[in-house]
Amino acid sequence: MLNACSDKQLKLFSLTSNTAIAEKIAEAAGLPLGKLSSRQFSDGEIMINIEESVRGSDIYIIQSTSNPVNDHLWELLIMVDACKRASANSVNVVIPYFGYSRQDRIAAAREPITAKLVANMLVKAGVDRVLTLDLHTVQVQGFFDIPVDNLFTIPLFAKHYIQQGLFGEEVVVVSPKNSGIKRARSLAQYLDAPIAIIDYAQDDDSLREEGYIIGEVEGKKAILIDDILNTGKTFAEASKIVERGGATDIYAVASHGLFAGGATEMLQSAPIKDILITDSVCTNEKLPDNVHYLSASKLIADAIIRIQERKPLSPLFAYDRKGDES
Amino acid sequence: MLNACSDKQLKLFSLTSNTAIAEKIAEAAGLPLGKLSSRQFSDGEIMINIEESVRGSDIYIIQSTSNPVNDHLWELLIMVDACKRASANSVNVVIPYFGYSRQDRIAAAREPITAKLVANMLVKAGVDRVLTLDLHTVQVQGFFDIPVDNLFTIPLFAKHYIQQGLFGEEVVVVSPKNSGIKRARSLAQYLDAPIAIIDYAQDDDSLREEGYIIGEVEGKKAILIDDILNTGKTFAEASKIVERGGATDIYAVASHGLFAGGATEMLQSAPIKDILITDSVCTNEKLPDNVHYLSASKLIADAIIRIQERKPLSPLFAYDRKGDES
Amino acid sequence: MLNACSDKQLKLFSLTSNTAIAEKIAEAAGLPLGKLSSRQFSDGEIMINIEESVRGSDIYIIQSTSNPVNDHLWELLIMVDACKRASANSVNVVIPYFGYSRQDRIAAAREPITAKLVANMLVKAGVDRVLTLDLHTVQVQGFFDIPVDNLFTIPLFAKHYIQQGLFGEEVVVVSPKNSGIKRARSLAQYLDAPIAIIDYAQDDDSLREEGYIIGEVEGKKAILIDDILNTGKTFAEASKIVERGGATDIYAVASHGLFAGGATEMLQSAPIKDILITDSVCTNEKLPDNVHYLSASKLIADAIIRIQERKPLSPLFAYDRKGDES
Amino acid sequence: MLNACSDKQLKLFSLTSNTAIAEKIAEAAGLPLGKLSSRQFSDGEIMINIEESVRGSDIYIIQSTSNPVNDHLWELLIMVDACKRASANSVNVVIPYFGYSRQDRIAAAREPITAKLVANMLVKAGVDRVLTLDLHTVQVQGFFDIPVDNLFTIPLFAKHYIQQGLFGEEVVVVSPKNSGIKRARSLAQYLDAPIAIIDYAQDDDSLREEGYIIGEVEGKKAILIDDILNTGKTFAEASKIVERGGATDIYAVASHGLFAGGATEMLQSAPIKDILITDSVCTNEKLPDNVHYLSASKLIADAIIRIQERKPLSPLFAYDRKGDES
Amino acid sequence: MLNACSDKQLKLFSLTSNTAIAEKIAEAAGLPLGKLSSRQFSDGEIMINIEESVRGSDIYIIQSTSNPVNDHLWELLIMVDACKRASANSVNVVIPYFGYSRQDRIAAAREPITAKLVANMLVKAGVDRVLTLDLHTVQVQGFFDIPVDNLFTIPLFAKHYIQQGLFGEEVVVVSPKNSGIKRARSLAQYLDAPIAIIDYAQDDDSLREEGYIIGEVEGKKAILIDDILNTGKTFAEASKIVERGGATDIYAVASHGLFAGGATEMLQSAPIKDILITDSVCTNEKLPDNVHYLSASKLIADAIIRIQERKPLSPLFAYDRKGDES
Amino acid sequence: MLNACSDKQLKLFSLTSNTAIAEKIAEAAGLPLGKLSSRQFSDGEIMINIEESVRGSDIYIIQSTSNPVNDHLWELLIMVDACKRASANSVNVVIPYFGYSRQDRIAAAREPITAKLVANMLVKAGVDRVLTLDLHTVQVQGFFDIPVDNLFTIPLFAKHYIQQGLFGEEVVVVSPKNSGIKRARSLAQYLDAPIAIIDYAQDDDSLREEGYIIGEVEGKKAILIDDILNTGKTFAEASKIVERGGATDIYAVASHGLFAGGATEMLQSAPIKDILITDSVCTNEKLPDNVHYLSASKLIADAIIRIQERKPLSPLFAYDRKGDES
Repeated sequence: MLNACSDKQLKLFSLTSNTAIAEKIAEAAGLPLGKLSSRQFSDGEIMINIEESVRGSDIYIIQSTSNPVNDHLWELLIMVDACKRASANSVNVVIPYFGYSRQDRIAAAREPITAKLVANMLVKAGVDRVLTLDLHTVQVQGFFDIPVDNLFTIPLFAKHYIQQGLFGEEVVVVSPKNSGIKRARSLAQYLDAPIAIIDYAQDDDSLREEGYIIGEVEGKKAILIDDILNTGKTFAEASKIVERGGATDIYAVASHGLFAGGATEMLQSAPIKDILITDSVCTNEKLPDNVHYLSASKLIADAIIRIQERKPLSPLFAYDRKGDES
Repeated sequence: MLNACSDKQLKLFSLTSNTAIAEKIAEAAGLPLGKLSSRQFSDGEIMINIEESVRGSDIYIIQSTSNPVNDHLWELLIMVDACKRASANSVNVVIPYFGYSRQDRIAAAREPITAKLVANMLVKAGVDRVLTLDLHTVQVQGFFDIPVDNLFTIPLFAKHYIQQGLFGEEVVVVSPKNSGIKRARSLAQYLDAPIAIIDYAQDDDSLREEGYIIGEVEGKKAILIDDILNTGKTFAEASKIVERGGATDIYAVASHGLFAGGATEMLQSAPIKDILITDSVCTNEKLPDNVHYLSASKLIADAIIRIQERKPLSPLFAYDRKGDES
Repeated sequence: MLNACSDKQLKLFSLTSNTAIAEKIAEAAGLPLGKLSSRQFSDGEIMINIEESVRGSDIYIIQSTSNPVNDHLWELLIMVDACKRASANSVNVVIPYFGYSRQDRIAAAREPITAKLVANMLVKAGVDRVLTLDLHTVQVQGFFDIPVDNLFTIPLFAKHYIQQGLFGEEVVVVSPKNSGIKRARSLAQYLDAPIAIIDYAQDDDSLREEGYIIGEVEGKKAILIDDILNTGKTFAEASKIVERGGATDIYAVASHGLFAGGATEMLQSAPIKDILITDSVCTNEKLPDNVHYLSASKLIADAIIRIQERKPLSPLFAYDRKGDES
Repeated sequence: MLNACSDKQLKLFSLTSNTAIAEKIAEAAGLPLGKLSSRQFSDGEIMINIEESVRGSDIYIIQSTSNPVNDHLWELLIMVDACKRASANSVNVVIPYFGYSRQDRIAAAREPITAKLVANMLVKAGVDRVLTLDLHTVQVQGFFDIPVDNLFTIPLFAKHYIQQGLFGEEVVVVSPKNSGIKRARSLAQYLDAPIAIIDYAQDDDSLREEGYIIGEVEGKKAILIDDILNTGKTFAEASKIVERGGATDIYAVASHGLFAGGATEMLQSAPIKDILITDSVCTNEKLPDNVHYLSASKLIADAIIRIQERKPLSPLFAYDRKGDES
Repeated sequence: MLNACSDKQLKLFSLTSNTAIAEKIAEAAGLPLGKLSSRQFSDGEIMINIEESVRGSDIYIIQSTSNPVNDHLWELLIMVDACKRASANSVNVVIPYFGYSRQDRIAAAREPITAKLVANMLVKAGVDRVLTLDLHTVQVQGFFDIPVDNLFTIPLFAKHYIQQGLFGEEVVVVSPKNSGIKRARSLAQYLDAPIAIIDYAQDDDSLREEGYIIGEVEGKKAILIDDILNTGKTFAEASKIVERGGATDIYAVASHGLFAGGATEMLQSAPIKDILITDSVCTNEKLPDNVHYLSASKLIADAIIRIQERKPLSPLFAYDRKGDES
Repeated sequence: MLNACSDKQLKLFSLTSNTAIAEKIAEAAGLPLGKLSSRQFSDGEIMINIEESVRGSDIYIIQSTSNPVNDHLWELLIMVDACKRASANSVNVVIPYFGYSRQDRIAAAREPITAKLVANMLVKAGVDRVLTLDLHTVQVQGFFDIPVDNLFTIPLFAKHYIQQGLFGEEVVVVSPKNSGIKRARSLAQYLDAPIAIIDYAQDDDSLREEGYIIGEVEGKKAILIDDILNTGKTFAEASKIVERGGATDIYAVASHGLFAGGATEMLQSAPIKDILITDSVCTNEKLPDNVHYLSASKLIADAIIRIQERKPLSPLFAYDRKGDES
């Protein structure tokens, strides 16, 4: 509940990408969702009408920029513009899933850095603060000069697995690709488990048949961890490699479940016992039977309340995020 | 053809919204279209790879921001980001149809000004210049502080009608709504014809049954003129009112043909002899049989060449656009 | 009266262009005008000294940017600079008449967009919010990215005419030029009256002899409406055309009365019964005998109080401003 | 003359404040003045039409921001806006006299820094470079982040006096107020002469009767030097003090001659033999008989040519401007 | 003491350049210094950890940018970045000695204006306000567009000397170089004393042997005044000239005591009785025996409290700073 | 050699951090180094004088921001300011070693993102383009909105090892910490070798004793790869672990050799046969005997020439940098 002595009024609004999590956040925060209408005309243009005053209030807009990402981004930008022109005191955007976050660097000649472009667009539109969840790379925080609070999901996952007895030396946390090793290391620390990595001699997608394991999985329960479950291919391939490597049970966990382009079929047929994801993304895709959702809404609601009451967010981060520099 | 003495290389690229007009512009300018790939992944994200060097070149990107407008806008912003990071000398965007241009003011409490938002996003992404065609309101030019060249279509239309013998006192140019009177006045001047207006006592869409004519149409050939043919409702209603008013033949002309949401059925059944539009928008919708396209590609190509050769664009405007101040 | 619980101190200052309206606004708001001295030296330079602390306060500066517009604009910019450097919490400018607002688009090759330039200068100088009255074109709101509240005068005028029995079918609201049709339509809706337009075959000032009426005025009481009464020529010509068209009584109404360059003589000799304007502009010109002022001070004072108390301004707009898009 | 190999076209325009110097600059540079019309309407608003193409050209706009300074500044800002929107390659402003330059610091509580405000306005309007003459304080260069070339007049004055035999120990250069000592020191170095200062125990204008000389003037020819000759009071008072101090002949020199508010009478009656100024300011005031103009037009023309040909300006500064740090 | 009704929390932090003055300021303000760690790694990089929450607070960071100035500036910029990203409500920097302030103009071709660069860096890093002490030139305030409060030390010095009986006609205030005359004039006004100047025919450092006095010092007690005591050379030379001129006792006073590069030896051997400075700079250099410190901490603490309580600072300026314009 | 047809003059300047590489770059580019003086005064302030004209030229400034990093950064910023004010056409900075690049994210509550701060400072000072070498994380490119060319060193290293016969299955490329796996993977691809990782159960520096190998090193020649060799601790520890794991020969390679804080002793005593680094950093530290330098100067010179001639840099990148997204 929001402390009564706060001098500005907090108003929470949900756009259309993930009303389910927005309602849970609102409930957890003990706040109503503000009234607005957001329509898409037959020519594809979005029109927003905010149906209550925002003058002088601190506005929090909840919107995952998931598929259709371009519509969801414009809806968000338009809402920000409307709030600013309507004299909101501050415009805070809550983005449980931050789309385009993987386009965070120039990987080949003449590529855009779309994650930075998104950051620039949000700030130029008038955003004062971003609250998000498990960014693909933490450096994306530095794409902004406004405050960005990046909440972590690994403590949630760790608690879940520990409750299920999945920890210690009989477990191995596996990064299904070499770039995800930091996430695997982080979960492994919670679970007091070793790590392993699936490496591909060729990074190139079209060539990457020959994955192999670095580290030991034989006879262990393997937990595959990634931030984004997109087409399911990464998990599906990794689970087969880990199975061949002798793992007894295979679990998969990701913060953001997109389930795009046939993910369900691919994952149904993979030797994965259980897939754990948060509710950061709301998808219309049919889901595999073995998917379980863990809601991030309480975590996000707590963060909103703390921001508004000017209390530190650090208590929400239950583990040491210290770096790894040489 | 581009004058050889120009010291910077001009490169023309087409994004995906209207490749037909891009190819015609390229042909008229005597320039090839640059190589790029633009893909949309299964999660909805767009990825662009520019497949030739743009370093030091003046880049012209052709993209109508028509339906799906949010995808087309992001594709454009991402391309601009890529060009800028790849050291283009300048990034010029050619937007034959400028989406969201009607959201150019706050019409009700707490509305956004999305046309300004679009302008801000383009500039922040790195656009140096905009070339567009018949903006919904000319004030949108002032939403930018970079140069914006707004080409006019009315001389094209006037020439077409004069060639068909449609001019003089037996013709009347009709604005199908009171806000379009300046466009009607402008075409009427070319055709030496009087004007009339369809007025609605209630501007509100849901109430606007009771349209009526201000001015004389009886016994005349009426040309209805608007800038955007969207759902076709405005033209369809106006044509019926004008028919009841005694007009002999009814024509309709618009710069931008969106044909959204059942426009074709509505227009088929209306008493309109011929609908004239430019090719600024490429649509997949089925078109009415009586639509004729007039290509704006030559006009746009001439403008690009003049901009690059640092020649004035004013010769492309064949009529006096002087204002109307009190 | 300002609600006591507001946490910031509001201070109202008047610059020199229209101290009469400033005093009325202050009185209506129940607030004193702050102390300052503004001198113009013999070399034409303006020097402002604010004679009370503004540190931490929300400052509202009242200044119409009427003739001499350039002096009034610099006085305003200098005051804004002084407030900002003296640690004002926010700088709000109240501009009852927004000068240069008609230069809102490029009407001929190589023209400036001075209204946008003025907007840019205000924002760069440090303005946080603009409160103004009946902007020449509503799109000028989009020239700003800060909040702009644009108050409407038409409800004031409508109330006045209704009290005088001027409404219904025996009245016609006439736009004295084709570009003013939206204002005429808006007043007509309040008065349940039809509209008519004075059209000129040639927009060009030097050629525009041949004005004629579109619509019916015969036997009706005509109300000519415009936003700015400048030289009076537009009203004078229109009144003669409407008189020739058979109108019985002719009224004229405008939000802003400049009465520049011989307006009074021109209007004295025109067949206009009564001219109604607000007190947005203070002029030293001799006025025609038939001018009546309607003060906008109460409306502005209400808006200031609502802004400061973070209440919506929408109750101040008593009519539907919904758009007219095709 | 401009070197032919320069790749961009230079165009010179004069606004209305000082067409005399503009014509001389144009002549010295061997360039025509571009065509434009600048009108002031009866409501005080300025409208500029540039009557030749500026697309792709490097534009140099000549405008002293002298009295009426606010009009001249807006005329300049409007011209800059027009050039930028008309696709000028660069906009360079040549400001022989930079108005408001004395308001360069906060001298009393809550004062503006108008010189910085002017700098901000110019840059925001689109100015790429400033060329000016003898700024009141050199720190004003730092108010800009664009290149500012500040030409010096003292070498011109030194050459003039040396030609007249005014140098060496029989001359004394006198600063008529304590803040002008650097200028006196600089001219004295050229003339191999000592300096003296007029000091006032009270800086405050209303109290400053009791001026007295620091240094020796007895039996010497005194040259009073200041940057701006405004009301003439400073020179008039100083000349009387110097006369009482025993100076034989008294000369006065200033870069900018405003002659505001009765300067001529005041100077006529003062014991000054000859007043030397540049033509940076064009005034309609009646001038004292003993005024002589030294044109700065050649110096400015040389600077323009060197800027355009990318040659250093340092050869135009014929003396060491090294600092004075402790 | 800070008034309890202020709605935001003030937090004071000290960086490493001058912890002595920071502790005195904190004591005078009745506030604790916030906890932070600032380390410099073996590769020279600085890392700051703020060890208490700053979310929503008004942060005041105390840091003199004295030698090693580049380290101290980066430490300050890094702290500002950390505060801003950690959601401080405002970031205020208290800079008792503002390094690089003498590089405030372009004194020779192609020189930087480093004082402006420092201002730009501070603002870009996120500083909202600057509080400083006796800036080298007051125009540096105009290098910022944020509020800059520049506290004056001369009233402190005047009070000290008056207490010691040093005032009136038997005293002369001497500027040890011609550019410091305004400071001498200001102190002289407090002391009711005349002024004199040390002038050098050549400003250039390498040539400036031949200094001489303008004004009378014979038989008087001379107080040399400068803003920065750097290498001591300026004071040492001036004291010898003044001694030769017949001054009886010689004092020196400066706001900022750097004592760089052998200052102590140079000053020990000069005929100066007493050197007075504030504690704006903390130096490890050995000091001359005759140095006395006057703390500016109370003045700074008062200013911080007034800023936070939104009271005017003007009462802290006990003398008229009015300008000197011609 | 630079192609003669380029229309702008390129000028190369070296600041003081690494004149050795600057001279080699200049030689490889066939260009002289420009003349400038950069002094540090006794008060620690840096003063730069550029001793030749830069007006209209494209300036390339070579400066590694190595220890003392704060001095080197300010020297760079001051030089950029000087170039910009002296009318350089563009300011390009060549930063072989980019200091503070490891502070690229918020690793603990209230940390700064100093790498982003550095990026912001460079851009605000006026930098138009950055050319650098093997950034610590590629996301730092996205901290800029100007073009950043990030050259890769791995092809240089691969060529060196292949020439020495170090490739194929008998070699293993080892990342000495889990976060460096991408670099190991990249070199391994060139050498057709497998990879291994040194993992630490605790990331925290103080606890990280218990490192262990993931993957196979037994009987293989191990190449340890990192980007920055700072204190040598990472390599020293990893080499011992790898030795215990049974590697036959151990090599180490890093792009940037800082050798800070006792690195030499630590590395001398570690079982490393040969350490390979580039000359991006010039250090005064005593080096271990087994260090070999591979110059990056030719690579950098080629990049400068290609940038200036507007040719793509992609040919300088001899391997596929394609990403790894799920």
